[in-house]
Amino acid sequence: IQSKLPQAGTTIFTIMSTLAAEHNAINLGQGFPDFAMNAALSELVSKAMADGHNQYVHMNGLPVLREAIAQKIKQLYGNPVSANDEITITPGATYALYTAFTAMLQPGDEVIVFEPAYDCYIPAIELNGAKAVTIPLTPGTYKIDQALTRAAITPKTKAILINSPHNPSGAVLEEDDIAFLTDITSNTNLFIISDEVYEHLIFDGKKHLSILQYPHLYERSFVTFSFGKVYNCTGWKTGYCVAPPALMKEFRKIHQFNAFTVFGPVQYALAAFLKDEAEYLELGSRLQQKRDYFKNLMAQTKFEPLPSYGSYFQIYSYANISDEKEYDMAVRLTKNYGVTTIPVSAFYKNPVENKVLRFCFSKKESTLEAAVERLLKL
Amino acid sequence: IQSKLPQAGTTIFTIMSTLAAEHNAINLGQGFPDFAMNAALSELVSKAMADGHNQYVHMNGLPVLREAIAQKIKQLYGNPVSANDEITITPGATYALYTAFTAMLQPGDEVIVFEPAYDCYIPAIELNGAKAVTIPLTPGTYKIDQALTRAAITPKTKAILINSPHNPSGAVLEEDDIAFLTDITSNTNLFIISDEVYEHLIFDGKKHLSILQYPHLYERSFVTFSFGKVYNCTGWKTGYCVAPPALMKEFRKIHQFNAFTVFGPVQYALAAFLKDEAEYLELGSRLQQKRDYFKNLMAQTKFEPLPSYGSYFQIYSYANISDEKEYDMAVRLTKNYGVTTIPVSAFYKNPVENKVLRFCFSKKESTLEAAVERLLKL
Ligand SMILES: CSCCC(=O)C(=O)O
Ligand SMILES: CSCCC(=O)C(=O)O
Repeated sequence: IQSKLPQAGTTIFTIMSTLAAEHNAINLGQGFPDFAMNAALSELVSKAMADGHNQYVHMNGLPVLREAIAQKIKQLYGNPVSANDEITITPGATYALYTAFTAMLQPGDEVIVFEPAYDCYIPAIELNGAKAVTIPLTPGTYKIDQALTRAAITPKTKAILINSPHNPSGAVLEEDDIAFLTDITSNTNLFIISDEVYEHLIFDGKKHLSILQYPHLYERSFVTFSFGKVYNCTGWKTGYCVAPPALMKEFRKIHQFNAFTVFGPVQYALAAFLKDEAEYLELGSRLQQKRDYFKNLMAQTKFEPLPSYGSYFQIYSYANISDEKEYDMAVRLTKNYGVTTIPVSAFYKNPVENKVLRFCFSKKESTLEAAVERLLKL
Repeated sequence: IQSKLPQAGTTIFTIMSTLAAEHNAINLGQGFPDFAMNAALSELVSKAMADGHNQYVHMNGLPVLREAIAQKIKQLYGNPVSANDEITITPGATYALYTAFTAMLQPGDEVIVFEPAYDCYIPAIELNGAKAVTIPLTPGTYKIDQALTRAAITPKTKAILINSPHNPSGAVLEEDDIAFLTDITSNTNLFIISDEVYEHLIFDGKKHLSILQYPHLYERSFVTFSFGKVYNCTGWKTGYCVAPPALMKEFRKIHQFNAFTVFGPVQYALAAFLKDEAEYLELGSRLQQKRDYFKNLMAQTKFEPLPSYGSYFQIYSYANISDEKEYDMAVRLTKNYGVTTIPVSAFYKNPVENKVLRFCFSKKESTLEAAVERLLKL
């Protein structure tokens, strides 16, 4: 068969995780916690199975879970979204993004993507015959460059993709970014795809600015979330998409013939677990402690941190250590020093080399300590 | 946004299940068991979660689960498929089919689909810009009509979709069908998509003829399976696709950007559970008892059974009872008699009316009894 994605290779996360395993390296590459998730949540899944909730859940997701999400959205973002018409549970946020792109994109459409960008965006856009127009974020701060963005908008631009807290940099959208998005989208037909999977993982007293809290932006947006990322169970692959009724209607037409519905017992569990606000409101400060713990240890090494205000990640520069390309450096760190990271260059369509690596700090303190001990040998 | 699937409405399964709930009807419509799944399997999921297996599983599926599947395939079908290169775990078989179609179809391609057909096939084909060429199965037996099929093959035909045991009819492929498929596909570029989700649910001493056991057919096939269907936990949405390496490579390129990976704890559980052959070898005879139990009760009514050799389903004719259209009859049975079925006409792109309804007999005996008691009032 003719390949639909001739260039697609194995994702950098799988490549680096495989290399880490081969060399018995400490894996600070792929973004997943190495500590235990909250057992109360997994016990609720066991209970749902024991209670016999093992048959198809409603195509759009378990109604009580959608109600609980709507409740939470109203509380956090002041936006009364409809559980019936505006929320769909998905097998992960990557799936939600893929399905949103498939629902909205026509061949020839253009989507603005800020780079560095998580690696599932561009192939999903291209698979729909559309084109990803990539714009570099400002080096160092990873903030949106307003002039470059304005210049990239053409009559073919269908949507702008944003991601906050940002993977790989940990940058977060600020009020001036929202004002800029408002300015460039108002009185246009532009859509917004907002990837907010790290919603609660935000630091230093910053507040997550969700597209959901801006009705004039939300009315033309698909917004995606992840339970796996925030509740430290990335392997659960459960997320959701929120969009206004007309957009959600098209999203569901694709979902109906793609996965149709999602592993049910987890939905019962989450519906109960979401009722406890503290369970998500405290996630940011707990993870901030890890970021700080790691940063303090890393201060002994020659790596230099770039700011991280959210997500599992912080980017560090190795300009003081080596001139190597990022991928080569990441491979060498794994093979010779036993620490695995992700080269940030892998987050660009046409790799940009800045001598920076992404570290996942969502790990046990002992893991972070052991990694830094190894990096001190550099 | 412009709709990619302007005609798509809510699936008949959701429509009938919603109507059943509204009218407190006994739901023999949507295909799911109402009895408990095997607790040993769900307890293995709880154990996997408690053991901390809550982070990303390998993109292609948990290696030990793929090994266990390869082992089972070799034992049942004599075909040594590679766990590494030919098996991918998916969030359900519907997803596996969607992903296979997306991987292989180009705009303008034609796919032969036998009707009545499960309702996710045609939209998934059309979403990829391809055309579903529908061919009616022989009325009554639901066997492939060889002359009609030969006549439908054009230079644009890319693939033939088969489904055995067949939903909605319970027909199963026989050796003469395999010979016919061999005849029309050999020395061509035609692919086969084989939906075998009811693999183990086969009756009357028949053997499931899997495409996997015919190397000359398998070499150009995508074959899809479901754990949820066979292990009585449809809500688990876990299945897999088997295809030769070159095809699987393209399948995985789509999967990587669609769901990427699947709920992990279930994969640990299935890897252990699959080791016990009896757990799947006995499924067919257990379900056959239900088919027979229901059929014996139905003999007291005016409904007349068509043959069913597999799946959860049996089609019954109501020609002796009414002249109504199938959908109207199904609605009336729900509203006035409290029994929900699926009109078989819903399995056709251009509805064909044969005065037949599909009954799901994968239910507790008490449920089947109560339903027939109600139908006796007709
Ligand atoms: C889906 S594997 C990658 C996990 C992740 O989000 C990341 O490491 O960026
Ligand atoms: C995915 S809902 C429908 C379940 C099913 O396979 C059927 O009823 O045919």
